[in-house]
Amino acid sequence: MSFFSFELDPALAADPVFDLHRRGKMTMSATVPLASKDDLSLAYTPGVARVCEAIAEDESLYPDYTWTANTVAVITDGSAVLGLGNIGPRAAMPVMEGKSVLFKQFGGVDSIPIVLDTQDVEAIIATVKAMAPSFGGINLEDISAPRCFEIERRLDAELDIPVFHDDQHGTAVVTLAALRNAARLLGRDFGALRVVVSGAGAAGVAITRTLIAAGVEGANMIVVDSRGIIHAERGDLSGMKAQIGATTNLSGRTGGIAEALIGADVLIGVSGGSIPEEAVAGMAPGAIIFALANPTPEVHPTVAHKYAAIVATGRSDFPNQINNVLAFPGIFRGTLDVRAGTITDRMKVAAADAIAAIVADDLRPDAIVPSPLDPRVAPAVAAAVAAAAIEDGVARLAAAPAHTTAVPAVAAAPAA
Amino acid sequence: MSFFSFELDPALAADPVFDLHRRGKMTMSATVPLASKDDLSLAYTPGVARVCEAIAEDESLYPDYTWTANTVAVITDGSAVLGLGNIGPRAAMPVMEGKSVLFKQFGGVDSIPIVLDTQDVEAIIATVKAMAPSFGGINLEDISAPRCFEIERRLDAELDIPVFHDDQHGTAVVTLAALRNAARLLGRDFGALRVVVSGAGAAGVAITRTLIAAGVEGANMIVVDSRGIIHAERGDLSGMKAQIGATTNLSGRTGGIAEALIGADVLIGVSGGSIPEEAVAGMAPGAIIFALANPTPEVHPTVAHKYAAIVATGRSDFPNQINNVLAFPGIFRGTLDVRAGTITDRMKVAAADAIAAIVADDLRPDAIVPSPLDPRVAPAVAAAVAAAAIEDGVARLAAAPAHTTAVPAVAAAPAA
Repeated sequence: MSFFSFELDPALAADPVFDLHRRGKMTMSATVPLASKDDLSLAYTPGVARVCEAIAEDESLYPDYTWTANTVAVITDGSAVLGLGNIGPRAAMPVMEGKSVLFKQFGGVDSIPIVLDTQDVEAIIATVKAMAPSFGGINLEDISAPRCFEIERRLDAELDIPVFHDDQHGTAVVTLAALRNAARLLGRDFGALRVVVSGAGAAGVAITRTLIAAGVEGANMIVVDSRGIIHAERGDLSGMKAQIGATTNLSGRTGGIAEALIGADVLIGVSGGSIPEEAVAGMAPGAIIFALANPTPEVHPTVAHKYAAIVATGRSDFPNQINNVLAFPGIFRGTLDVRAGTITDRMKVAAADAIAAIVADDLRPDAIVPSPLDPRVAPAVAAAVAAAAIEDGVARLAAAPAHTTAVPAVAAAPAA
Repeated sequence: MSFFSFELDPALAADPVFDLHRRGKMTMSATVPLASKDDLSLAYTPGVARVCEAIAEDESLYPDYTWTANTVAVITDGSAVLGLGNIGPRAAMPVMEGKSVLFKQFGGVDSIPIVLDTQDVEAIIATVKAMAPSFGGINLEDISAPRCFEIERRLDAELDIPVFHDDQHGTAVVTLAALRNAARLLGRDFGALRVVVSGAGAAGVAITRTLIAAGVEGANMIVVDSRGIIHAERGDLSGMKAQIGATTNLSGRTGGIAEALIGADVLIGVSGGSIPEEAVAGMAPGAIIFALANPTPEVHPTVAHKYAAIVATGRSDFPNQINNVLAFPGIFRGTLDVRAGTITDRMKVAAADAIAAIVADDLRPDAIVPSPLDPRVAPAVAAAVAAAAIEDGVARLAAAPAHTTAVPAVAAAPAA
């Protein structure tokens, strides 16, 4: 039996991280007055019945008269949480709460963390579909590959609200932004970059697809998984990896990471493993290395700098942090603003270009992406994403309404 | 295509109910600071990973370090919404938001409205079970009978968090409170009351069971459904109605509402239909009539007063409003405070007795229940429910922690 707040483990009670997390990180509140009988008769019975009847008659009123149009569920099954692996739904909740409060803080999006007591693909799809009318969007989080691909694809196809797996697309968008600016700073032709992606999980697959969508020549890209270079002749490929085998590495290079990196301009590490210095040494001069594994980059920045002109990591204590918080709040803000039913490749590329543009006039090798706290990022991303949604014909509104585009700047946080 | 807030139907835009409901009635916010890099590293990566790891190692830490211990999902399938019937999940959302904000306002409970895109009993059960780890309790709402009985029974049995169908038990608790005070005021023996319940839906069934649990002699109760008096010999009974047939009306009275009411002390109307004055005239002298149908009571109060010493309705514009808001915020507050895994009959009766006690020293025929806005109600209900949970051995904590029993009084509402 565990006791609440007064019989906690003294070691935990004194720890600032645990102290901060006590009783969680979020709360909900009313936006309408509830202090008088008249208040109750407007917000609840009998007044509320008229709003219900109006929506029953005309379902297009639903987003206008409920909180759902500004609400995103952050959903996980706890199967691939941070670098911790399959720790289950309950242990994943602190991350989902964190994501939810970042959605609000940076994007003004109301976000609800939902952890699922199943890791069965069909059960996850059925559960999310059943609760989907409660929300304006679905952010999938920390679901392991390759299950995440099927879950996202099916939900996006079968629901009329946007579905976004942040571990794939958030990472891909910020990586693309960083690579745009790295190429710009070094005067390289973006489309001609020879890119090696180490890791073919959720992030690696999405980065590969997004870079191709943004103009990198797929034929010149090489993706390496735990068994080595992916190529069309490998007999063990299915699903997303088979697609990668068919669209990248058209010269049919074989071998491991060392063979992949020979002459490469760019290394993007999303594998969690370590890449030996000898392999890195084979890259083309003035390379770009993004070693994104957390907490231990695939190549330590000190080593990377011996061979690379620009180095980025996933860590906040090195320059050029590739942090998803630069992407997801603004992407959902813009998507919800125009009620887009899906998030297209063009919207993702537009988000990346907006992130890159924030710092484009002041590029330095140690400043190719904005700070995660830069208040200009989310509004710029939201505007670019909304415009791309309209261009792609997936927006239900012709323009973002004024009140939602006013993304709050990073303000003084509420008292704990 | 509907446009947001600037192209609304002008008639709706000018209507105070619709004006209040624009963009919904609730929001979420962080309870932790998120303004600096240090803030982010505590609330999100890398700090959050340590909390995740601690919960993965010891799941009993889960309620201490997430918001879930104070969070209740308000869940509907939209099949029986207010008096509007089966209007579906989206049209039900304004009621669920209303319920959620009342939970917070009166009970300090964080509450999330979830509307389900299925009305299949097994699918509802599977969906709620899958998302259940996200919450500290489940409040089922506006689910039609008899489906609601099976859904609640199965979820309560299969989940380790409390499950409460408010249309059943909230109504039953407040009805019991009112009947306790009516009997007290009239000097009647509560256990000997001859009670007729008109209606055998969710509320009627729960009221019958709760009154018996509280001491009314079941043998003397009569329940009437759309086909007439329920008795053991009726061949069309199954499920809950069969149980009612076996435990009430042991004298085997037959007929309709008029036959049922002959000599009755109490009429509780939860049918939505109309009861003719001739039938009411057959009641014992100095009767008690609770005509709870909304918006049109089964017996108009003016008529009821010709035969009854005490009259109550479900409406706010007559005295003695039987309003569930007197029950559910305090019941969940008390249940969450001691982390009870279920809500027992004793906890429900304790809640009713606490509601009744608030006004017991100042009883008048037109004041047998407190006002829904009375700030003394929820804390008193919470304390009684928590004590009953401990007595029944269903509490996981030995006492409510100080910070949660401080239910906020009804305060000035936040600005809209």
